[in-house]
Amino acid sequence: MGTGQTWTVGVTGATGYAGGEVCRLLAGHPDLRLAGVHANSSAGRRLGELQPHLLPFADLEVRPSDAASLAGYDVVVLALPHGESAAIAAQLPADTLVIDCGADHRLNDPAAWARWYGGEHAGSWPYGLPELPGQREKLADARRIAVPGCYPTSVTLALAPALAAGLVEPEVVVVAASGTSGAGKSAKPHLLGSEVMGSVSAYGVGGVHRHTPEMIQNLSQAAGTPVSVSFTPTLVPMSRGILATCSAKLRPDADADSARAAYAKAYADEPFVQLLPEGQWPTTAQVLGANTVALQVAVDADAGRLVVVAAVDNLTKGTAGGALQCANLALGLPETTGLPVVGVAP
Amino acid sequence: MGTGQTWTVGVTGATGYAGGEVCRLLAGHPDLRLAGVHANSSAGRRLGELQPHLLPFADLEVRPSDAASLAGYDVVVLALPHGESAAIAAQLPADTLVIDCGADHRLNDPAAWARWYGGEHAGSWPYGLPELPGQREKLADARRIAVPGCYPTSVTLALAPALAAGLVEPEVVVVAASGTSGAGKSAKPHLLGSEVMGSVSAYGVGGVHRHTPEMIQNLSQAAGTPVSVSFTPTLVPMSRGILATCSAKLRPDADADSARAAYAKAYADEPFVQLLPEGQWPTTAQVLGANTVALQVAVDADAGRLVVVAAVDNLTKGTAGGALQCANLALGLPETTGLPVVGVAP
Amino acid sequence: MGTGQTWTVGVTGATGYAGGEVCRLLAGHPDLRLAGVHANSSAGRRLGELQPHLLPFADLEVRPSDAASLAGYDVVVLALPHGESAAIAAQLPADTLVIDCGADHRLNDPAAWARWYGGEHAGSWPYGLPELPGQREKLADARRIAVPGCYPTSVTLALAPALAAGLVEPEVVVVAASGTSGAGKSAKPHLLGSEVMGSVSAYGVGGVHRHTPEMIQNLSQAAGTPVSVSFTPTLVPMSRGILATCSAKLRPDADADSARAAYAKAYADEPFVQLLPEGQWPTTAQVLGANTVALQVAVDADAGRLVVVAAVDNLTKGTAGGALQCANLALGLPETTGLPVVGVAP
Amino acid sequence: MGTGQTWTVGVTGATGYAGGEVCRLLAGHPDLRLAGVHANSSAGRRLGELQPHLLPFADLEVRPSDAASLAGYDVVVLALPHGESAAIAAQLPADTLVIDCGADHRLNDPAAWARWYGGEHAGSWPYGLPELPGQREKLADARRIAVPGCYPTSVTLALAPALAAGLVEPEVVVVAASGTSGAGKSAKPHLLGSEVMGSVSAYGVGGVHRHTPEMIQNLSQAAGTPVSVSFTPTLVPMSRGILATCSAKLRPDADADSARAAYAKAYADEPFVQLLPEGQWPTTAQVLGANTVALQVAVDADAGRLVVVAAVDNLTKGTAGGALQCANLALGLPETTGLPVVGVAP
Repeated sequence: MGTGQTWTVGVTGATGYAGGEVCRLLAGHPDLRLAGVHANSSAGRRLGELQPHLLPFADLEVRPSDAASLAGYDVVVLALPHGESAAIAAQLPADTLVIDCGADHRLNDPAAWARWYGGEHAGSWPYGLPELPGQREKLADARRIAVPGCYPTSVTLALAPALAAGLVEPEVVVVAASGTSGAGKSAKPHLLGSEVMGSVSAYGVGGVHRHTPEMIQNLSQAAGTPVSVSFTPTLVPMSRGILATCSAKLRPDADADSARAAYAKAYADEPFVQLLPEGQWPTTAQVLGANTVALQVAVDADAGRLVVVAAVDNLTKGTAGGALQCANLALGLPETTGLPVVGVAP
Repeated sequence: MGTGQTWTVGVTGATGYAGGEVCRLLAGHPDLRLAGVHANSSAGRRLGELQPHLLPFADLEVRPSDAASLAGYDVVVLALPHGESAAIAAQLPADTLVIDCGADHRLNDPAAWARWYGGEHAGSWPYGLPELPGQREKLADARRIAVPGCYPTSVTLALAPALAAGLVEPEVVVVAASGTSGAGKSAKPHLLGSEVMGSVSAYGVGGVHRHTPEMIQNLSQAAGTPVSVSFTPTLVPMSRGILATCSAKLRPDADADSARAAYAKAYADEPFVQLLPEGQWPTTAQVLGANTVALQVAVDADAGRLVVVAAVDNLTKGTAGGALQCANLALGLPETTGLPVVGVAP
Repeated sequence: MGTGQTWTVGVTGATGYAGGEVCRLLAGHPDLRLAGVHANSSAGRRLGELQPHLLPFADLEVRPSDAASLAGYDVVVLALPHGESAAIAAQLPADTLVIDCGADHRLNDPAAWARWYGGEHAGSWPYGLPELPGQREKLADARRIAVPGCYPTSVTLALAPALAAGLVEPEVVVVAASGTSGAGKSAKPHLLGSEVMGSVSAYGVGGVHRHTPEMIQNLSQAAGTPVSVSFTPTLVPMSRGILATCSAKLRPDADADSARAAYAKAYADEPFVQLLPEGQWPTTAQVLGANTVALQVAVDADAGRLVVVAAVDNLTKGTAGGALQCANLALGLPETTGLPVVGVAP
Repeated sequence: MGTGQTWTVGVTGATGYAGGEVCRLLAGHPDLRLAGVHANSSAGRRLGELQPHLLPFADLEVRPSDAASLAGYDVVVLALPHGESAAIAAQLPADTLVIDCGADHRLNDPAAWARWYGGEHAGSWPYGLPELPGQREKLADARRIAVPGCYPTSVTLALAPALAAGLVEPEVVVVAASGTSGAGKSAKPHLLGSEVMGSVSAYGVGGVHRHTPEMIQNLSQAAGTPVSVSFTPTLVPMSRGILATCSAKLRPDADADSARAAYAKAYADEPFVQLLPEGQWPTTAQVLGANTVALQVAVDADAGRLVVVAAVDNLTKGTAGGALQCANLALGLPETTGLPVVGVAP
């Protein structure tokens, strides 16, 4: 429907996977109009050469990725490698809505930034996960928003309700399977199709993945107490999708019923979080290309643990869809405007 | 935008892949409203159990698939196995728009029907490929439409311009790679993931695939002379998509330039046919979930053949998207209403 | 090399994935000769129709799967669904080497059998995991051997050294990714290629997978104390392979060095266990078709957990290769005879 | 069994896919011993870092790839990019068996070399496809052998019998699906897993693939007359395997029976060519990791064409296995020594 008004959007990193997904979603958004695409290394080329699926935008010329080139848009989406967005963002007008899909403005703690990313901390922006309690309000009228990482989106939504309700101990174990697009579009040998097809591998084992502090931050806030996170990402043979298997020791007074009730309550009114009926388990296919999180909870009575499994599309709800969901909120649009909830399955 | 009016749609075969795709696309269509889902074998169950990706329709109860149950919709989409739609369609009111995604009403020649499918021919309906010359007009105001098969969609669009322009001899060779969803959702051993992943196989070799007569019909019509089609389908390890590699002997007066010109002219105004810039070749990923056909043409001077490669999503432009494109035309809506043109890549 | 003697082998379940893998490995074994293939449902057919890859055995006729038909072999391998092997095994001569790839004789505790599989317990046989301390000796000259399940093989080898050395608390969390062949060859809708390609899903969540008691049995034996196991299997888009991500809380006196030392010591002389150099992480591709387990260990200092990742081919080391490794031991052959250690990569 | 004698083998390009496959097969060869691995860019590193699946050779140090470093082996296998092997080969002793897996010595016609590869022609060596009539004899005692390309292996074996028997016109159309390993291990964006999974694409359309002249050479020799080849390769989402769909117009006096008879006769005694029983079609999975070619033939009576489908593993029979098959012949070993014929399926 739309409100009659249209906002122009500039996307930098538009030749990569996250930026390309922003463009794809903009093609279906009634109130936001992709007005320019930016990327330093391929400036001057037609977008269609680099992103052949973006048919309506094929003839856009890629422009440079500096603040001057990005001036004049109502909305700027930064889909850049970590550490590159802060400097650009600092030069954009205060009333431009700037949405950072990178990590630069996600962490509240400068020490955590220094440890995990190095260099000076750019400061934190309102965190773009509207499903967290109280967060939606902070995003309305915000002009700077830090979109969560793809793993933290799935893990936070999977575990926050249980921690907030005090159902589990604040020591969580997460093993997440990710499609390869999460690793980006630069050509590295271990990401070749020949290497990843027919193979699952672990990486970043031992808590060394840079998304870990973001999970700790979110989950500790939900729990009201420091939470330890043992996080192991694995790479699986698919392009898109994250399946996060999360567990924690159940507290004595908690059980399957109280767990389910906590999740049902937390997400009762959330348009993008789907708590599946009992007995049905999430698949990444069901949310492919959609802004949906599919969740299921179970209690392992023998082991005394709560197990929560969450599926997201790392590029959609995990990045670009989350970004536009936040843009909708910040611009006063209905939160769901232009965002698909139906996955492209099978 | 929409016209203000909304039409109700009933889909039968809604628990299968083609019917599910119709439902997925209806979720994004502003003027058509999915009002009921039908399928005999799972009548009584929630759609969400069988099609978990169809989140907005999860609570619809699957109803039986007979004419009585299908009464009352403005539009009925039949996504049924070949041979099952004719009897149902015959009982639906004449002013209901009935769109058949099966083969029952595609062939003009009763003898061809008898040979390839067996039994009595149900008669032919306007053929739902608006990109064929003169066809768009026949679909406006039609109330019965036969949607093409997925292979014929790609092959016809790939070869019709060259045959119509007399650039090639009327003997064509087609080898098409198809994802597994084209084979449907019933569980057969050779379609198990364990069998298809990491493997390509041929099937229906020697011209025995039932889509062959439909290609012959379309291409002969385009050429104005009988065309022979050597068609070999292969099964490749992906869920969706067809890549059709089509070739024919170039006539003496034709060359790369005249070939390219013929395609550029044929598809200049087609919203869903994308003739790629020279040097760029179609991938099925670029049209995944989209109603787009991506095409490229080349001349092999040494072998003296024109080679045309076409990529479609077998479930979208190849079936469900094509069906809704026709519904748009028949209902007087803009042809592109509610149909995505951007593929979900990567 | 060989010893000059040749043993005849009969395989039942030869038309399935596990039995087919036994046949594949026998094709490369110098001292064991596949003498007959058995399977009830397809008795009378040529093996080549059902297992086209088993070229040297294509003309073998599949025979029934009862004790009478299985008489006369030196070695019988039973690759049957759980609950079907005990009755057959009971009728085979005591001096026939019988190797059961099913669960019937794996569990020591009749109560555990009754709870997880139901019905009467058939008793336990020597457990076919030679890498467990003292186990190799029990397999020499055994005439009945119970081959471990594919998940227990990977998880037991991943965690036993740490538990035996007292490095971790006896509460372990395992999330394992499995290829689809682990679910067998019977055609079920959720195992269709269309469903599994491009998708990861969880199943058996909450400790309900039947392999859990076997892991508990093995790990408790290693630890000398009851161990709780939280086990979540996931299905990933590949045909073969398991990647098990296993973790447990590190005890105060343990660290990365002591952990690594424990694994190096435990597997120093094991021909099929490969502790990878530091910094290198297992992939399932590297062990595809091989009898090798690839392992790596790490300590997550922040979370205070030991993380061990193990990759196996579920059909080779996880079933059929493990079976022939045990046969080698039982027959007095060098343990590695005829077993590939190099994976088919990429 | 072996002859008692052992030959040492040096492999250059051992860190790539073709060279790695040579090493994998050598691990199972009783008479050939991998004595050294070579590759310029990674000289000095452990092989295990680069080829983790090659467990028995993990501790070999990669040495440079020049003639001096390659001196002293009984056999040298060159698995190098096109144009790099001739110079090295020229410096190796005449009595060293040199097997070139690259293109440098495959083409007989210097003009064809100049047109397709550029630069000066290094001359042609005995062509390593023993299944061609009279070719086996030329390889016995050869000390220089040019191994065919992967596409020419499959296409030549698929079409040579029909052309030699005069069953078809000398104008053939080939569409081949290839796994990604055929494109090598250097990281290019279009070969990323994210790009190739879920996608099929065409490339080298219009007869521009460098393997075309090799097919023309082989098929023309078989036909005794110049043969035109229209060749379109496609890239499919799997690591290994080629499925070549080949067709040509049937001559008036030929039919399905005479076609089948020609193939049955041509390959009656070939240990590595499997003409499948009627009605069964090749899959690449059935030959994965094996030196086998699976073939089937059909006649499309309506279109008047013979269709032959061949499946090979591009790295095994298509390169490394073919190389060792030739080495066996040249060294006087039984041709099948050490070469698997059973594919790793599923």
